[in-house]
Amino acid sequence: MKEYVEPAEGKLGILIPGLGAVATTLIAGVEAVRKGLAQPIGSLTQMGSIRLGKRTENKYPKIKDFVPLADLNDIVFGGWDVYEDNVYDAAMKAKVLDAGLLTAIKPELEALVPMKAAFDKRYVKNLDGTNIKSFTTKKDLADQVREDIRNFKAKTGCTRVVMVWCGSTEIYQVEGPVHHSIAAFEAGLENNDDHISPSMIYAYAALKEDVPYVNGAPNLTVDTPALVELAKETGNPIAGKDFKTGQTLMKTIIAPGLSARALGVRGWFSTNILGNRDGLVLDDPDNFKTKEVSKLSVLDEIFRPDVNPELYSELYHKVRINYYPPHGDNKESWDNIDIFGWLGYPMQIKINFLCRDSILAAPVALDLALFTDLAKRAGMSGIQEWLSFYLKSPQTAEGLRPEHDIFKQLMKLQNTLRHMMGEDLITHLGLDYYQDIVDSMH
Amino acid sequence: MKEYVEPAEGKLGILIPGLGAVATTLIAGVEAVRKGLAQPIGSLTQMGSIRLGKRTENKYPKIKDFVPLADLNDIVFGGWDVYEDNVYDAAMKAKVLDAGLLTAIKPELEALVPMKAAFDKRYVKNLDGTNIKSFTTKKDLADQVREDIRNFKAKTGCTRVVMVWCGSTEIYQVEGPVHHSIAAFEAGLENNDDHISPSMIYAYAALKEDVPYVNGAPNLTVDTPALVELAKETGNPIAGKDFKTGQTLMKTIIAPGLSARALGVRGWFSTNILGNRDGLVLDDPDNFKTKEVSKLSVLDEIFRPDVNPELYSELYHKVRINYYPPHGDNKESWDNIDIFGWLGYPMQIKINFLCRDSILAAPVALDLALFTDLAKRAGMSGIQEWLSFYLKSPQTAEGLRPEHDIFKQLMKLQNTLRHMMGEDLITHLGLDYYQDIVDSMH
Amino acid sequence: MKEYVEPAEGKLGILIPGLGAVATTLIAGVEAVRKGLAQPIGSLTQMGSIRLGKRTENKYPKIKDFVPLADLNDIVFGGWDVYEDNVYDAAMKAKVLDAGLLTAIKPELEALVPMKAAFDKRYVKNLDGTNIKSFTTKKDLADQVREDIRNFKAKTGCTRVVMVWCGSTEIYQVEGPVHHSIAAFEAGLENNDDHISPSMIYAYAALKEDVPYVNGAPNLTVDTPALVELAKETGNPIAGKDFKTGQTLMKTIIAPGLSARALGVRGWFSTNILGNRDGLVLDDPDNFKTKEVSKLSVLDEIFRPDVNPELYSELYHKVRINYYPPHGDNKESWDNIDIFGWLGYPMQIKINFLCRDSILAAPVALDLALFTDLAKRAGMSGIQEWLSFYLKSPQTAEGLRPEHDIFKQLMKLQNTLRHMMGEDLITHLGLDYYQDIVDSMH
Amino acid sequence: MKEYVEPAEGKLGILIPGLGAVATTLIAGVEAVRKGLAQPIGSLTQMGSIRLGKRTENKYPKIKDFVPLADLNDIVFGGWDVYEDNVYDAAMKAKVLDAGLLTAIKPELEALVPMKAAFDKRYVKNLDGTNIKSFTTKKDLADQVREDIRNFKAKTGCTRVVMVWCGSTEIYQVEGPVHHSIAAFEAGLENNDDHISPSMIYAYAALKEDVPYVNGAPNLTVDTPALVELAKETGNPIAGKDFKTGQTLMKTIIAPGLSARALGVRGWFSTNILGNRDGLVLDDPDNFKTKEVSKLSVLDEIFRPDVNPELYSELYHKVRINYYPPHGDNKESWDNIDIFGWLGYPMQIKINFLCRDSILAAPVALDLALFTDLAKRAGMSGIQEWLSFYLKSPQTAEGLRPEHDIFKQLMKLQNTLRHMMGEDLITHLGLDYYQDIVDSMH
Repeated sequence: MKEYVEPAEGKLGILIPGLGAVATTLIAGVEAVRKGLAQPIGSLTQMGSIRLGKRTENKYPKIKDFVPLADLNDIVFGGWDVYEDNVYDAAMKAKVLDAGLLTAIKPELEALVPMKAAFDKRYVKNLDGTNIKSFTTKKDLADQVREDIRNFKAKTGCTRVVMVWCGSTEIYQVEGPVHHSIAAFEAGLENNDDHISPSMIYAYAALKEDVPYVNGAPNLTVDTPALVELAKETGNPIAGKDFKTGQTLMKTIIAPGLSARALGVRGWFSTNILGNRDGLVLDDPDNFKTKEVSKLSVLDEIFRPDVNPELYSELYHKVRINYYPPHGDNKESWDNIDIFGWLGYPMQIKINFLCRDSILAAPVALDLALFTDLAKRAGMSGIQEWLSFYLKSPQTAEGLRPEHDIFKQLMKLQNTLRHMMGEDLITHLGLDYYQDIVDSMH
Repeated sequence: MKEYVEPAEGKLGILIPGLGAVATTLIAGVEAVRKGLAQPIGSLTQMGSIRLGKRTENKYPKIKDFVPLADLNDIVFGGWDVYEDNVYDAAMKAKVLDAGLLTAIKPELEALVPMKAAFDKRYVKNLDGTNIKSFTTKKDLADQVREDIRNFKAKTGCTRVVMVWCGSTEIYQVEGPVHHSIAAFEAGLENNDDHISPSMIYAYAALKEDVPYVNGAPNLTVDTPALVELAKETGNPIAGKDFKTGQTLMKTIIAPGLSARALGVRGWFSTNILGNRDGLVLDDPDNFKTKEVSKLSVLDEIFRPDVNPELYSELYHKVRINYYPPHGDNKESWDNIDIFGWLGYPMQIKINFLCRDSILAAPVALDLALFTDLAKRAGMSGIQEWLSFYLKSPQTAEGLRPEHDIFKQLMKLQNTLRHMMGEDLITHLGLDYYQDIVDSMH
Repeated sequence: MKEYVEPAEGKLGILIPGLGAVATTLIAGVEAVRKGLAQPIGSLTQMGSIRLGKRTENKYPKIKDFVPLADLNDIVFGGWDVYEDNVYDAAMKAKVLDAGLLTAIKPELEALVPMKAAFDKRYVKNLDGTNIKSFTTKKDLADQVREDIRNFKAKTGCTRVVMVWCGSTEIYQVEGPVHHSIAAFEAGLENNDDHISPSMIYAYAALKEDVPYVNGAPNLTVDTPALVELAKETGNPIAGKDFKTGQTLMKTIIAPGLSARALGVRGWFSTNILGNRDGLVLDDPDNFKTKEVSKLSVLDEIFRPDVNPELYSELYHKVRINYYPPHGDNKESWDNIDIFGWLGYPMQIKINFLCRDSILAAPVALDLALFTDLAKRAGMSGIQEWLSFYLKSPQTAEGLRPEHDIFKQLMKLQNTLRHMMGEDLITHLGLDYYQDIVDSMH
Repeated sequence: MKEYVEPAEGKLGILIPGLGAVATTLIAGVEAVRKGLAQPIGSLTQMGSIRLGKRTENKYPKIKDFVPLADLNDIVFGGWDVYEDNVYDAAMKAKVLDAGLLTAIKPELEALVPMKAAFDKRYVKNLDGTNIKSFTTKKDLADQVREDIRNFKAKTGCTRVVMVWCGSTEIYQVEGPVHHSIAAFEAGLENNDDHISPSMIYAYAALKEDVPYVNGAPNLTVDTPALVELAKETGNPIAGKDFKTGQTLMKTIIAPGLSARALGVRGWFSTNILGNRDGLVLDDPDNFKTKEVSKLSVLDEIFRPDVNPELYSELYHKVRINYYPPHGDNKESWDNIDIFGWLGYPMQIKINFLCRDSILAAPVALDLALFTDLAKRAGMSGIQEWLSFYLKSPQTAEGLRPEHDIFKQLMKLQNTLRHMMGEDLITHLGLDYYQDIVDSMH
């Protein structure tokens, strides 16, 4: 039965803390697509199709024709950054997109100038920047961000806004008392509690302004009782943590395949080389820790050594990230996987992924923006587990293990869309195509 | 609601045409597992678990504890080969398993001597062999194989038998008039029709003796109206074609991942090096053709360029197999995948799989034997599409596209087992874990 | 003692049969370097340095400052092709160089229009073309090419000319009677002998016009007694066969390293994927044969299994070239090398070279042109074995095994230059740095 | 003119500090070779040949038939270790060689029990051990080692002894005052100077007992004025530092190839995974530092950015070593090399070396032992630069840059042997094969 989903009327604002490589690639890309200069490849909302009904019906509409998403032409971007560069200059420095393409949309990109950032160097050690808000208390800082949001709405006339964090990885933090309730959190804002990082301030401001929040980094941010509570209270979806791209994307593709075939895994060594701002930030051990925790959990949840000890209890998993300037944004990963099969015989898989960090991340950011906006219009608030598909370290309800297998995540996403629109869920059973068999079974 | 499945009482015979590397690795492996010398890694029936119920129930029984499969201790092996070597000698020559392990089970393996093969060199050009049946007509040859089956049953006291083809890839054949009905086929047997290859004779003999047939090679064999008809008539399951191992296994793991993310693919180059008997046979172009057709279809069915032309219509797919003696059975594959993402930017994935052909194939052969035996006891006859999971080129009902995505195949397999045992099917929807959300939707 | 080398006065013409990817990359590159837009990386004559004297003198002049080479500003290009495209259009189609760079030198490139080619489709099966000379006898064809050379000289005022073959690989040919003497060859020209291919006609014409000839393809061409005789008679250097780039370059780097350490090699599997015109031509088995023979000899000559049978007598060497359009000129190779060390223990090396065919070939073509011109001015005629460094299948004096080890080739090249200029040869002995040692030895 | 080299009469003792994976692989290997069970592959002294005279003479004797080396049958092993295990037990634990092979030589290996080690945990943080000498001063410790050497000689009747360090990498140390003269060093021994590490004590003891010293680790040890002075004084050769195996071996093979062709290099990323004791020791940053310094210098010396700034001045070189237990002694390296060619166009080379650490190191240790013994008999003392071929970080005379190019190193080694035996040095000039050319030049 079809649920009621409000239509996507008016303009949708996408507000982004962190106008670096990912954000500028997203913004320039949407601009280029609107102008017919390029295609939004890698975006499920724009390019993906979804099977409806029986296989023999051969019914595969595009997702954007199936669910009522905001149209790319209705999107307005805005954002904050610690550097003053407008989006054109920032994109040129990021060196992700060709100069030729950027030139074709220069006026639109130049018009986009970042607002002063809510920033504190203690949380991102290898970054400096001068385009920064002054503040007395963190409460004051949050109020400034809220005002920015209201101004943006007023100026652009957007009917709806979502916020998507594309900023840096902050230093590692664990949940503390200040995160246990929204009351504690608001007190912490007043007395500048160290456990409240800038990303939390953005998220808080967003939710208070009735804006859904997407967490594209492995930061703690909205993964606390306080902000989940606030999200539910204000009726806003939240989604996180950490855009799933590159090596982890490959890992959550391949590990389910090995597990499917009951192949054992003794070791998995993953190394990365990248030379963009992200690589620079992660060159600091405290910031790397946050990323490492996000990346390491993946295999345990897919292999479940607790359920399959003969296959996975001895798995040695190591992840390394190396700052390597010659590659710029062209992140490259190399994985060595030591597996074993029949009678314990060893085999090896080597994967070398010559990827582009921001090219993979931009459509993920877009999809999460559009889907959280959709979720809000469908009346869904709080954690959106069905968006795990896009995230390295999915946020889940208390007591629920995250699902990392990208194919189960996709199934969950697609069946959620089908459910939303009143279509039959798909189980891939398909015995009915072999009718005499089914008959013989009943 | 639970279907009725007959219990697995008595001994199960597994009869194998082709006692080469795969078959001897399977037989020696089962023997080693029975003696507690090794584990049947890679076999879903022996090592795999299946989720039942809700995630929060944490209920993951082993598959063999969930459905009534034949026990490894109840299996009796037999087979045919063009060489006289007993299984011990053949395994030593295949050089897949360590001499130490084979020595520990030498008496059991030596006792297994192949029956004379139904063989015709015209269908497998690079093989010679002297352990071969003489015959006048192909009907006569089929009768000899049927008699072998009856003798095997009588001698071993097996209550049930399945036949699993582990022989070579035959030359490429397409469906002809002789395959259109069982009547035409039987006439062809009488007048030695060229379009009836040895594998078809084995399959025909099996079905006539009430024995399910598993087709481990890309040969046409049971993928014709005639033999499907015979399978249904006699109430026997059939499964084919071509054990899915190595490169194609990886391909059906990775391609669904790219497709999931709407990443475009411009080229996929796959090369293989292997030095075993299989490599020698495939060094002949006519035999390679059969394998190539089996390997090439995979990507088209996963990517569906008809549905997603912007992403996959220009995909150039090339598969090469090279006979390379230094590697023996240690098949190795290298894949270069040219993908493109956001705005069309190119990226590359390279996969180097240092695998072992027979180590991957043996548990697949075992699972297919056990599952077709299960299917027969569950009253399922004809094509078993739910076993596509194990096959490079799954046989399907007329008019139905094969499913190559290994994760959909797994879903289909698992939901079939759940359905058989009266458990709820799994859809990964899971909105109920977020109750307030669900409430808000109704 | 210094030999007499004539100075490089006046302009040097470089005439090129085959204005495809390699030639246009060379021409455009030289133009770009002259304009200061880029550097001639990969060219030893332009970028390389050479050590003179003792290590402690730290004397490493650039090669171009050490020997009297023609200056890039004094080069004039010309050539023939089966297509009418001028060099700008041909370079755009080849897609090797960025459009931006080509635009900056468009007028110079457009001015270069190919002369009609001496072509016969029977020798290059996968190529077609309409910019072709008509002819009655091959003698007539040779005369037309000679006239082209004379016209070029007259028009451009070049004092010296060299010819560099950058055309396609012709079908496989072995030496026949027509190649045994210049008399037999000239008779063959008159009566259209099938064993005289177009490349031989170009070479003959060049030598008759006092022009050195460089053979950039694996074609037989000047590797016959007839044309060696003509080269000596006319006092012209010749160099061939087959520009050494990509995979073979890597092979002649790595094999000497393994051999240096007395490591055994059991197998070497080399595969290539490329999508340019070269790949298309080599997709035909007859043309591939020529290339394969050129590529296969390399390892035998480096490893010398006759001298080191325990290490190399069982080496299995396989080379594959695959036409793969998605990569264009971006040729890519993958090598698997099976080595063995101490006590026979096996190890493996995998090499994946993401190269660019024409980018590697262009500077090789340039250096060979400049060095053959130098050789001529130094009074050296006939085979130039010291240029083996640049060639996949070096031409040598009768009865002399070719040297394939790139480091011995480099030593030979550098010591030849030192010898030419009267400098001490280098032996890397260096015991004199440890004087007391030397003292103690005498 | 032939120098006088004393013949290799009597037995040669090889004394080894550190009976771990490398040493036990060496000892077991020599034993196996003597028994005819295996071949000493990878050892130039045993398997290598050397060209003498002109190419056309085809004269390639084995090195061991050319220079008077000690025969493998005349070698007697001894050594020290921090663990009590005899060589058989240590080899079994190292898991480098097959149990089957070790069993065949068990009695010989069991008879070899390590002497108590001169050890100090402060210099090798991740190792513990109980088979350790007590001592008051470092002088006392040195005396104990000297006594061990004398006892070994007396017991075995060896006429000559060499010492080969196969122990761990010590923490990073730089030259200090205590290393400036042998007088300062001996004073330091008396007052337990911290800058004298255990390896220096072994080296000192060796030289004082007239025993050449080979330094197989990157430790400072004999690379100081004090010990060079002692070596000359006592007439003993020394060779170091750090056996060249695995990744650095490949690097000094490939880098000269790129340099030969004047190809630029922008980045070189090298990562290693290994799980043996060496990996464990290097997991400590202080010990890794020593290794890193040894590994990093290689490229600078081969590429000489000071001489070729356009090609190599921006090279970013990064080396990582990761402790990865699943691989044990099967060290594996992955290198990504970012090169650029003609006009600056980028290309990439990826090298994956699945090697075996001790299998590569054992023959290097053997050769160094045999060649230093030869050098001593040839009257050569102090630094042996001609053995750079085997070393990651060759020790040279003051003010002389080390040569890292393995092909120049090989040339140096071979020409030194030729010089020693009065043969012509080889320059690869070879113009004399083309007589008419030479004639024309004179």
